[in-house]
Amino acid sequence: MKNMKVVALAGGVGGAKLAAGLQAVLPPGDLTVIVNTGDDFEHWGLTICPDLDTVMYNLAGIHNPETGWGLLGESFTTFGAISQLGGEDWFRLGDKDLAVHLRRSEWLRQGVSLTEVADRLRRSFGIPSNILPMSDSPVRTLVHTDEGDLPFQHYFVRRRCEPIVIDLSFVGADQARLTDAVQEALSAATLVVFCPSNPYLSLDPILCIPGVRQQLRRMAAPKIAVSPIVGGQAIKGPAAKMMRELGQASSPLTVVDHFDGLLTGFVLDDQDAVLRNAVDLPTVVTNTMMTDLESKINLAKQVLALGTELMVSPSAKIRRRSKAAS
Amino acid sequence: MKNMKVVALAGGVGGAKLAAGLQAVLPPGDLTVIVNTGDDFEHWGLTICPDLDTVMYNLAGIHNPETGWGLLGESFTTFGAISQLGGEDWFRLGDKDLAVHLRRSEWLRQGVSLTEVADRLRRSFGIPSNILPMSDSPVRTLVHTDEGDLPFQHYFVRRRCEPIVIDLSFVGADQARLTDAVQEALSAATLVVFCPSNPYLSLDPILCIPGVRQQLRRMAAPKIAVSPIVGGQAIKGPAAKMMRELGQASSPLTVVDHFDGLLTGFVLDDQDAVLRNAVDLPTVVTNTMMTDLESKINLAKQVLALGTELMVSPSAKIRRRSKAAS
Repeated sequence: MKNMKVVALAGGVGGAKLAAGLQAVLPPGDLTVIVNTGDDFEHWGLTICPDLDTVMYNLAGIHNPETGWGLLGESFTTFGAISQLGGEDWFRLGDKDLAVHLRRSEWLRQGVSLTEVADRLRRSFGIPSNILPMSDSPVRTLVHTDEGDLPFQHYFVRRRCEPIVIDLSFVGADQARLTDAVQEALSAATLVVFCPSNPYLSLDPILCIPGVRQQLRRMAAPKIAVSPIVGGQAIKGPAAKMMRELGQASSPLTVVDHFDGLLTGFVLDDQDAVLRNAVDLPTVVTNTMMTDLESKINLAKQVLALGTELMVSPSAKIRRRSKAAS
Repeated sequence: MKNMKVVALAGGVGGAKLAAGLQAVLPPGDLTVIVNTGDDFEHWGLTICPDLDTVMYNLAGIHNPETGWGLLGESFTTFGAISQLGGEDWFRLGDKDLAVHLRRSEWLRQGVSLTEVADRLRRSFGIPSNILPMSDSPVRTLVHTDEGDLPFQHYFVRRRCEPIVIDLSFVGADQARLTDAVQEALSAATLVVFCPSNPYLSLDPILCIPGVRQQLRRMAAPKIAVSPIVGGQAIKGPAAKMMRELGQASSPLTVVDHFDGLLTGFVLDDQDAVLRNAVDLPTVVTNTMMTDLESKINLAKQVLALGTELMVSPSAKIRRRSKAAS
């Protein structure tokens, strides 16, 4: 794993888990996670960045593995009091979590960039990896549904992903500026990992930041996606449901097609081994279910091993089933 | 107590206690408390209004009687987390209390006036009395000390009132606008009570709002102050220390002189009974130590009884010692 500079593109839980695995395997500082901020929103007068925080809490090892969001051993005293005062109570914020939102919002109002805010926070939590928002410009995912247009968190949390998705917009993405930090991380990367995050909701917003897709296309480093779809289902979240609503098969092959021209490698779950010949990319088949640190580390090793092979032989057609990386 | 419209001018703890006594005695809605906002400040990116909240929590009966600030049964989880993140931790904010600051700050940012915010909050807490900030314009008390100029909370909390006070400024008071709510409350008042709050820090800022002093001078209603100085000491806070530092005697007589021309009645504590002949105002001598609801109610009744006498006979020289009002 020496001399690998890994950039992981991540959204929420799945991405955060693989990022934690990669961090555990790589030398400190060699992982940079570029995180979706399309889910960000204003709530209680604060700027909430759910994916940045999920990645941060997972990399700090203080995340709540039961919920997939928030902190372990969290209390909800302020939340209860806000609710009693007639405040919005459809989005739960814990008391310790709230400290992060307060710090972030205060800094943002002082004119500190979100990139700098994310860096200050990850350093406070003692995280060795870099955590970069996809942009400092606000981008807000808007979900076009059969019930009308819904801001992302209203679709995701308030309406529990129940409305049928017709299309998505990333409001502000056109005007969003690629940050120096993202540009430099991509330039320095020897491997790019598309984490098993929702392709539409988590990774597309990152790819829509002007310059990101172009830079990914240009770069020589291997680009490997881990399928977020296993056995026709998303491990968590609405990815499979959205695929069907958008007229696609809920299959890893849909993921490969979706990132057409960007990927140079792919990782399938054991359950989808039969599909390996249908993927027109060097592909590893392994256990992608990250239920504990060991399985996160194992998947990370598989991804890094495939990356290493592709660096040596970029056009290699690697189709194998391995239990563990060397 | 029928047909009395009472306006109480109040700062922190002492004022809040007497306000609670007055509320307990008067018909619902007949009390309006005009509250000092010179102590307000920005903290953690939120607007904190300590005196408004102390009055509100006391009128709701949910205040912490031990500390004098904050809520009963409070936790400090977010505070601890903010501290761990390197945030400012010299001013303690409880988790439930934080809900109030979040609601208020969000509303203020939306353009809602502080008067409307205070009214929304007191209604949420089921408080029958009106709670009015002295102005919607920001006024910030600046304490000129031997250690330099200190914003109020830095003097009061961070430096624990230790620096020697040379003078005070109420920054923004010159430009502050008298609100319709304050003007109407004063116009309708049949009795004005200067609560036993710090004359310099709590009541002077209210009196410095353009129009307040003039309106008080003009009005026919009795204006009664309850001495915040008992036995040469302030019951709570730096009033006595400040009097000495400003070259005054720490005496109820200093309070009378300070409000020269505004008061028409005065309330002395039993401990200061010897001073009654030195006060050139109709004066009641009673127990002013408000240690429980009963003593708050008793003091309120004494104040209202004096007010009633002064309404009937404004020039009466009332000098008596009474144990309880009729």
